[in-house]
Amino acid sequence: LITFLPENRRCEERIGDTLLDLALKSKIEVISVCGGLGACGKCKVRVVKGREFLSPISHKERSFLTIEDISSGYRLACQAKVLKKGEIEVEIPVTSRRGAYILQVEGIETPVTLSPSVKRICVKVKKPALKSVKSDHDLLLEALKTEARSISISCLRSLPVVLRNEKWEVSAILYKDEIIDVRSKKAKVLGFAVDLGSTKLAGYLLDLETGKTLGKTSRLNPQVRYGEDILTRITHIMKDKRKLSVLRALLLKAVNEMIRELVKAVNASTSDVYEVVAVGNTYMHHSFLGIDPSYLALSPYPPVVRKALTYDAKEVGLTINEGGKVYVLPNIAGFVGADCVAAILATEIYKLEKPCLMIDIGTNTEIVLNDGKGLFAVSTASGPAFEGAHIKFGVRAMIGAIESVAIRNCDVLYRTIGNGKPVGICGSGILDAISQMVEHSILDESGRLNENVCKELVKRDGGIKELILVDKDKTAINEDITISQKDIREIQKAKAAIATGIKVLLNNRGISSDDLEAVFIAGAFGTYLDPLSAIKIGMLPRVPLVKIHQVGNAAGTGARMCLLSDYMKRKAEDVAGKVNYIELAVEPYFQEIYLDSIKLKEYNI
Amino acid sequence: LITFLPENRRCEERIGDTLLDLALKSKIEVISVCGGLGACGKCKVRVVKGREFLSPISHKERSFLTIEDISSGYRLACQAKVLKKGEIEVEIPVTSRRGAYILQVEGIETPVTLSPSVKRICVKVKKPALKSVKSDHDLLLEALKTEARSISISCLRSLPVVLRNEKWEVSAILYKDEIIDVRSKKAKVLGFAVDLGSTKLAGYLLDLETGKTLGKTSRLNPQVRYGEDILTRITHIMKDKRKLSVLRALLLKAVNEMIRELVKAVNASTSDVYEVVAVGNTYMHHSFLGIDPSYLALSPYPPVVRKALTYDAKEVGLTINEGGKVYVLPNIAGFVGADCVAAILATEIYKLEKPCLMIDIGTNTEIVLNDGKGLFAVSTASGPAFEGAHIKFGVRAMIGAIESVAIRNCDVLYRTIGNGKPVGICGSGILDAISQMVEHSILDESGRLNENVCKELVKRDGGIKELILVDKDKTAINEDITISQKDIREIQKAKAAIATGIKVLLNNRGISSDDLEAVFIAGAFGTYLDPLSAIKIGMLPRVPLVKIHQVGNAAGTGARMCLLSDYMKRKAEDVAGKVNYIELAVEPYFQEIYLDSIKLKEYNI
Repeated sequence: LITFLPENRRCEERIGDTLLDLALKSKIEVISVCGGLGACGKCKVRVVKGREFLSPISHKERSFLTIEDISSGYRLACQAKVLKKGEIEVEIPVTSRRGAYILQVEGIETPVTLSPSVKRICVKVKKPALKSVKSDHDLLLEALKTEARSISISCLRSLPVVLRNEKWEVSAILYKDEIIDVRSKKAKVLGFAVDLGSTKLAGYLLDLETGKTLGKTSRLNPQVRYGEDILTRITHIMKDKRKLSVLRALLLKAVNEMIRELVKAVNASTSDVYEVVAVGNTYMHHSFLGIDPSYLALSPYPPVVRKALTYDAKEVGLTINEGGKVYVLPNIAGFVGADCVAAILATEIYKLEKPCLMIDIGTNTEIVLNDGKGLFAVSTASGPAFEGAHIKFGVRAMIGAIESVAIRNCDVLYRTIGNGKPVGICGSGILDAISQMVEHSILDESGRLNENVCKELVKRDGGIKELILVDKDKTAINEDITISQKDIREIQKAKAAIATGIKVLLNNRGISSDDLEAVFIAGAFGTYLDPLSAIKIGMLPRVPLVKIHQVGNAAGTGARMCLLSDYMKRKAEDVAGKVNYIELAVEPYFQEIYLDSIKLKEYNI
Repeated sequence: LITFLPENRRCEERIGDTLLDLALKSKIEVISVCGGLGACGKCKVRVVKGREFLSPISHKERSFLTIEDISSGYRLACQAKVLKKGEIEVEIPVTSRRGAYILQVEGIETPVTLSPSVKRICVKVKKPALKSVKSDHDLLLEALKTEARSISISCLRSLPVVLRNEKWEVSAILYKDEIIDVRSKKAKVLGFAVDLGSTKLAGYLLDLETGKTLGKTSRLNPQVRYGEDILTRITHIMKDKRKLSVLRALLLKAVNEMIRELVKAVNASTSDVYEVVAVGNTYMHHSFLGIDPSYLALSPYPPVVRKALTYDAKEVGLTINEGGKVYVLPNIAGFVGADCVAAILATEIYKLEKPCLMIDIGTNTEIVLNDGKGLFAVSTASGPAFEGAHIKFGVRAMIGAIESVAIRNCDVLYRTIGNGKPVGICGSGILDAISQMVEHSILDESGRLNENVCKELVKRDGGIKELILVDKDKTAINEDITISQKDIREIQKAKAAIATGIKVLLNNRGISSDDLEAVFIAGAFGTYLDPLSAIKIGMLPRVPLVKIHQVGNAAGTGARMCLLSDYMKRKAEDVAGKVNYIELAVEPYFQEIYLDSIKLKEYNI
């Protein structure tokens, strides 16, 4: 048996299992950005007892562990394998856990006229008579006085019993022109909207008759155990096609759990849910529907399908009403998915007559420009640095994460999420820190750390310069929390990717940043970042701050809008068909623009 | 262990099991008309050894077994229960077996213009390019140049791999305007038509591109173990709703087996089958789709649904191509089902301009009149007498069944199916015998057996007069095969039901039997009966024999026509909507007409 601390959770060990395998088996969610390849160093754990039963420290581990780490028993959970059975005790530090994450479900509320695809009609049905041969179905259609053209098989199966039990007064539930259920007049009519993020799932339960959001919930996307970034997951699938259904099953289980959790909270049942509207990037879209996403990773990165799709919930694998439907918004391109379409709906940038920009920041950042005449989109690989990956003390938004930083007289002021003892620094904090370092000339335009400005803040670790944000004795991790020269380079690359996308788009359409009427920043990181910091390091263009709108989970908002309105669904399909996708890699001067964007300075084009 | 003879098949006995249960468990198909209620006496078996381990002979059994039967060890398999474990040997006589049945699959061939709902389009699809963001699905649609409005989820799931494996040259399979499969250019495109009879299933495998019937097969409907007549099965379901899915599962298993058998014979696979067209009476229709048929047994006998239905084969429970469809023809009323609609299509009576009649004889007989202006249908409970039930020596069409009879000088001439040693008499034989008995005044008009005409042919059994058809020493069952006064009464009731239906229909529309241009007789019994005998006993009206057409399994033919032609499907829906159903019970003079029809004499109205 192996024991995980501090939970004292035990599980049977098998020879060949990694500590990561065993921790997951014990339901302890250890971070694994690279999906167990030993490439991210995020799954650090401390072996308290039984080191002798584990595989020797590998070459990969040495690149992430210091001498001190190693002597204190630190290992990478994905690399340390059980070689021999014995008593092993492993401590999982808070920084290697997923549990404490803050997940963003809030988004702007964009008003929408209620006209859902799911409609209830209450009717009094005539009873059959000997003199006229009418079927239960015929009599129902008569009572409905509607052009219902089909009826689901599940509805037909229950129809005769429901009509008689309910004494011929029933609710008929229609999905567009199909009758999908007949039940008690008192039945609830609910819908579920879900944003399938690469790392996070956000779900919303709505009453389809009032339009009210009855509940919100979120989960970490369980697929992250196969890699936090999409390409790692696709690689798993390319290596072993069976992983396609493994990954899909993980996702569906989580989505079904979210639905159950939310309906339970309002004393409803999953059979009260008649429609699920889902959005996600193209990979998540494909994975959700069970479509092979392998080719998204191979040039020219074609999606399998772009059009909006409606399927029976049963076919997709969701547990809602037997006749329930799943609507999936359309994709735009291999790397501009249905979530981007939903964000366009939520921000309503398609409506504006003056130029405006929508930026949905994630591992992949989608940027959409309305130039006043049409919609143009690019996708840029900004990477996971803003989410704490590849950053020495980077963490996701979690209790104790440093979320904002100011430097005053070589003194570092900071605030952590939930006022917790610092465990690391999250995206918005890193942005602030770098912007402040530039402001105080600790960093030059090229991003080189000048150790002569605030000498007391700078140290070296293995020759690499680092700026100390929080001293060891004030952190929860018993180490100085620093930003290293390497971290700065990572952030420069990430922000350059975004700036390049913006510049290429504006150039391509001949729009200057001064022309922009509005800039919408969507996504979790986008909610927390300080726009001024983003402008100062040259991630966003220099526009008046009043024009910048942080809209939170706009994809979730767009999904909710489509759940409430058939018109918005048609709008989504219409908009998706009209967005002109621009492939960054084939644009002229792409390389030059990118190299220029590495610089830490404001821009305006 | 219990042993069944002559197979020597053994199976473990459990206390409380009936011999019928154990025989079925041993895969020996014992006839059970009443579904195990002890009400039909058809499951006679002989206990050779171990009588002492069985329950005592019940009151019910005494009404079906003679003293000799009992002393020879005969029991009703459904009544004899194992009381104590011991060595039991039971012989199952050929007359109590289902195995030897002749099942009718042949029907008229009505030509139809090939225009199936399933179409294959061979296309060369363009490969995706970096310069244009098109999905695999977009490129497929472009190549198809068609208005395909949706794509099945199963097709999307396999699309990217198939396109690349087949080097972008593929067959797209469309069902109306939905793409249901994309696969190799060489793929076969097959369809399966099935007539779901109450006692018999007839299946046909068709090539949807040539229209050719590639194979035919049939099975006894496995539901007969829950009663040979529909009302017995519905009673089972009303008593225990779980029986609905038990009966459905039996049916689906048999249909899936038929499909597998037929595709195997032509070296195809079930995934080459894209559509199943099913017909059946309203009960079979409901049972097939999993719809509760209980209310068909309760006045006013409403069907749950009448309209034609199309569902995914997966939803119905059939194993064909993942994207395959099931089309079920429309019903007309609770006792005039989709099989009748199919027979109308096959006989084309809806096209004729002069009056004509279609009679589909079964346990329930449907009669459709085209009066030159419209279609009118009645349904009449003719009962299972023509199929051998409630007839002392009645058997279904099987090897050794007496199928035709003539009486010459008080000598009985007969022919058996397959020239087997006589095991009993089947419907057409009984009809012949009675007609001949009337001809020779052995029967008077009222149906009373006159024992003075051919004295040597008449004997008495427990006071009931019987006409000996075959002497004991010439039969396979070691008993005289006779027709009793009671049998004659059964046949009178059955034929009166049919004659009443015909008369009421003709009366209602003011048509005389002389006006009839054609009379189509459908169904297995209808194939074998001698029309002249049927006329002579007053079952069919006196019309010139040349106007009578025996069309065999016309329902199966109609199903095949719909499989081959979308136009015929629309025709079926159109025709079904136009048939005027006449409820016999509410017609004036119904009782008088029925009582008059009991008489054994020709009629002409």
